[in-house]
Amino acid sequence: MKDIQNTPDHRNISLREAGIKDLKYPIIILDREEREQTTVADISMSVSLPHHFKGTHMSRFLEVLTSTGCRFTGSTIPVVLRKLKETLEAESSRIRIEFPYFLTRQAPITGAEAKMSYLCAFTGESNKDSEDFMLTVTVPVSTLCPCSREISKAGAHNQRGYITMEVRTEKENNGKFAMLWIEELVEIAEASASSPLYTILKRPDEKFVTEHAYNNPVFVEDIVRNVAEKLGKDKRVIQFTVTAENHESIHNHNAYAVVTWTRPVSPEKDSCI
Amino acid sequence: MKDIQNTPDHRNISLREAGIKDLKYPIIILDREEREQTTVADISMSVSLPHHFKGTHMSRFLEVLTSTGCRFTGSTIPVVLRKLKETLEAESSRIRIEFPYFLTRQAPITGAEAKMSYLCAFTGESNKDSEDFMLTVTVPVSTLCPCSREISKAGAHNQRGYITMEVRTEKENNGKFAMLWIEELVEIAEASASSPLYTILKRPDEKFVTEHAYNNPVFVEDIVRNVAEKLGKDKRVIQFTVTAENHESIHNHNAYAVVTWTRPVSPEKDSCI
Amino acid sequence: MKDIQNTPDHRNISLREAGIKDLKYPIIILDREEREQTTVADISMSVSLPHHFKGTHMSRFLEVLTSTGCRFTGSTIPVVLRKLKETLEAESSRIRIEFPYFLTRQAPITGAEAKMSYLCAFTGESNKDSEDFMLTVTVPVSTLCPCSREISKAGAHNQRGYITMEVRTEKENNGKFAMLWIEELVEIAEASASSPLYTILKRPDEKFVTEHAYNNPVFVEDIVRNVAEKLGKDKRVIQFTVTAENHESIHNHNAYAVVTWTRPVSPEKDSCI
Amino acid sequence: MKDIQNTPDHRNISLREAGIKDLKYPIIILDREEREQTTVADISMSVSLPHHFKGTHMSRFLEVLTSTGCRFTGSTIPVVLRKLKETLEAESSRIRIEFPYFLTRQAPITGAEAKMSYLCAFTGESNKDSEDFMLTVTVPVSTLCPCSREISKAGAHNQRGYITMEVRTEKENNGKFAMLWIEELVEIAEASASSPLYTILKRPDEKFVTEHAYNNPVFVEDIVRNVAEKLGKDKRVIQFTVTAENHESIHNHNAYAVVTWTRPVSPEKDSCI
Repeated sequence: MKDIQNTPDHRNISLREAGIKDLKYPIIILDREEREQTTVADISMSVSLPHHFKGTHMSRFLEVLTSTGCRFTGSTIPVVLRKLKETLEAESSRIRIEFPYFLTRQAPITGAEAKMSYLCAFTGESNKDSEDFMLTVTVPVSTLCPCSREISKAGAHNQRGYITMEVRTEKENNGKFAMLWIEELVEIAEASASSPLYTILKRPDEKFVTEHAYNNPVFVEDIVRNVAEKLGKDKRVIQFTVTAENHESIHNHNAYAVVTWTRPVSPEKDSCI
Repeated sequence: MKDIQNTPDHRNISLREAGIKDLKYPIIILDREEREQTTVADISMSVSLPHHFKGTHMSRFLEVLTSTGCRFTGSTIPVVLRKLKETLEAESSRIRIEFPYFLTRQAPITGAEAKMSYLCAFTGESNKDSEDFMLTVTVPVSTLCPCSREISKAGAHNQRGYITMEVRTEKENNGKFAMLWIEELVEIAEASASSPLYTILKRPDEKFVTEHAYNNPVFVEDIVRNVAEKLGKDKRVIQFTVTAENHESIHNHNAYAVVTWTRPVSPEKDSCI
Repeated sequence: MKDIQNTPDHRNISLREAGIKDLKYPIIILDREEREQTTVADISMSVSLPHHFKGTHMSRFLEVLTSTGCRFTGSTIPVVLRKLKETLEAESSRIRIEFPYFLTRQAPITGAEAKMSYLCAFTGESNKDSEDFMLTVTVPVSTLCPCSREISKAGAHNQRGYITMEVRTEKENNGKFAMLWIEELVEIAEASASSPLYTILKRPDEKFVTEHAYNNPVFVEDIVRNVAEKLGKDKRVIQFTVTAENHESIHNHNAYAVVTWTRPVSPEKDSCI
Repeated sequence: MKDIQNTPDHRNISLREAGIKDLKYPIIILDREEREQTTVADISMSVSLPHHFKGTHMSRFLEVLTSTGCRFTGSTIPVVLRKLKETLEAESSRIRIEFPYFLTRQAPITGAEAKMSYLCAFTGESNKDSEDFMLTVTVPVSTLCPCSREISKAGAHNQRGYITMEVRTEKENNGKFAMLWIEELVEIAEASASSPLYTILKRPDEKFVTEHAYNNPVFVEDIVRNVAEKLGKDKRVIQFTVTAENHESIHNHNAYAVVTWTRPVSPEKDSCI
């Protein structure tokens, strides 16, 4: 049977990526409390394609995926990426695994327990001489407007907002990326907004959350600065982008802010662009 | 060229619908202030299929659509539906046209003007002996929680909510469905929530909106009842379903309420189920 | 602390539904091969609200949900619904649980194994004197156009399509709804299209799938009739709606067909509307 | 009334972006045949925020937008961007305007006319010393698999695919970005796939399209190379990213390929990465 993908190509154009997208698959993720949790991911995988090959063998992406057991961490992602390069005879490979992650949270006063979901992603790339790994966590929060509170006789508009943190950690001596728990990023985000969200709130909890938010007003600009301050102090973190987006309760559009940061080579001076 | 669709089918199963979906098309809609406005619609159209025909001629839906000039109102929809039945030799036909509709709104204090968008739909059906037409309008609003306000020392959680009204009007003596402007439903919805939303708000406006919402707390249950009270009093309206959905600012899930109503045959007593 | 929800309402309007929506939660589902599987659901729950109550106690929905252990089947859903009615002091309750379900499938020639996802839903309702349960399964398939094949010298346009089956089964003597496995509906749908889809296909498999689809051309109209024929013969099934939707590869819109069926009271004659 | 946004901030963190998102607004776009067309856009706008300011004045984005008349082209975007910088006292500004664009197309044999929609975007950025403008056009096409065709006795799997071109043109002597019509990119994309898509196809057209696609098989890798070859030869183009994504009709996931190119400084040698 002829292997069309293997035939030569004469257009002399190499491709940054050839691969698959939007694959829904059950996966297993490390969990700080429960050791591991099963969730459902959207997966994309690709490799670079040299100019002399017509096509990639798409079925091999799935063979590599199923051979991994679908257990993903910052440590196993580089292994999968190297296997993709090898199996698909490519110079570079990429993977993105997006999934909801669940944490059991307690209501602030009554302690009523239920799970909250946080959308997360692992993004990895393996090139000839370098490897990259990025953890993304999106945390829904409550945000109360400082301006509205200041100028109004009573009340203040507030709304659901989403904080997205895309974080890179440094490579340790053992060649692995420094571990950052999803739980740690959730805590940082929730402490940077007017209030965390909860799945169950009884009346005493609702009173607490309402008053807590009223006492902690933040703009989207404040949120990304609050998160940036905390992440920038973490020795493991070498780069991040933080986005906050508010589903404004007084508008039909959203407000957002973005901060990007790279740890400076000389450690004396920090810079946020 | 053989007409496969026209060949007989022996499974003895007639179909409720055969048609097309998810067609994006520019359309023209009546506008109370500006006479008409151009917008972009998602269109679906179908006909019933008798058990003895194998298939529908899908291209004819598009021919009927383009022949109409794409001007849609409660009066032109029945004409399109009759043309669909005729052209596709069917007993019944259906159409759904979903589109954003824009209104120029003024900020409550400064009068600053900008457009707001409202998602609307026309849904029509033409059967052997009956015709149906339904207007759907979704209005984004601000809602402030009465419970949170009551129990808290200061502030009250509020959020963006969406009110969806699906309304049928009676057929008038001329055979046309009584006209209900999109603008009328927008006004009813906005008056039933804690506050309307605006595209531009300067600081004096924001102060007004914040305080107005604080003074008009509503649950989703209140919203649908407020809308139902007003719609039920409108002589033109014979049936409606009203849904309110709040994107809760203290939870990562939504709260919602639904009320359904049909004008009773004996006009003495109203009933809401 | 005042219970605002419990205060009387004087608008005299009872609500069909008051509840929560868009809650993402991990759940456990029965699996024919593996006994059970963990997946991630979108959940909505509601109760009816009598005209004399101002509001529902939304936090109780979550308390009922977490108390169930989040194991859902056609047998546990009625139990949850009764608990919702009791806890929320309501006459009727509803639940909808939507989730991706995974099955391990083998490529038709090489037998290469990987998981496929199918979007499913359990929908239940409990009223004063009746209970309802509906299983929904959406199966992605390949469909090849009979008309295109007939009139063309070579080839035939084909595309990904989605078959959605909403099925009700009869109540058995023990008061439970007759069990229908998700796996059974997947098999019926796949046998009704031009070809099933697969996650891994090696070249011999791709040849098989291509030729198999070419030899089994179907319109959307054929698909829903094929599924209806099989479901109508199943003694457990008392009602269904089947929708097929093709993401046409020659258009930027979709083609679809719908068939609805209710088992006739007199068992002699079947009817499909 | 206090201006909270104007108060100093001491965290010493400047922001890349602060602005608004997901604003739906009617706009007017240049049209090669009809001079202009009205469509509906999703708009985002932002400015950079120096470290010493607490917040941006979000209402000014809307004031700038409404003052422009909402007529957008590669020439008016830089004007809007400069006005944003001035009004919001910022060093840099960004805008993204995403909209469906409609073209009247004729069926290949019968000439039957109807409109096709293409999702487009204008993305602009204005910095201290530089300006940027990018045109994005996504074209839905039909793609037929060369491998499936080669190895199968009859037929070949094909599907709807989407080609996205993000293109930058050079600045001309008058300081304006060289004009590239949306229509030109649509033509390039359609000529690079197995077949264009059409809104109306009568049977003779369907025969033509089926056979034309069968005679022009392409992988996603071929598509992006075909587009890249044409764009790379266009003197106006200085940079592009081309992505092709196939909604595979034999899988429930998609296949995709990406090529990125920047015009080399020395014009002798071209490079595609």
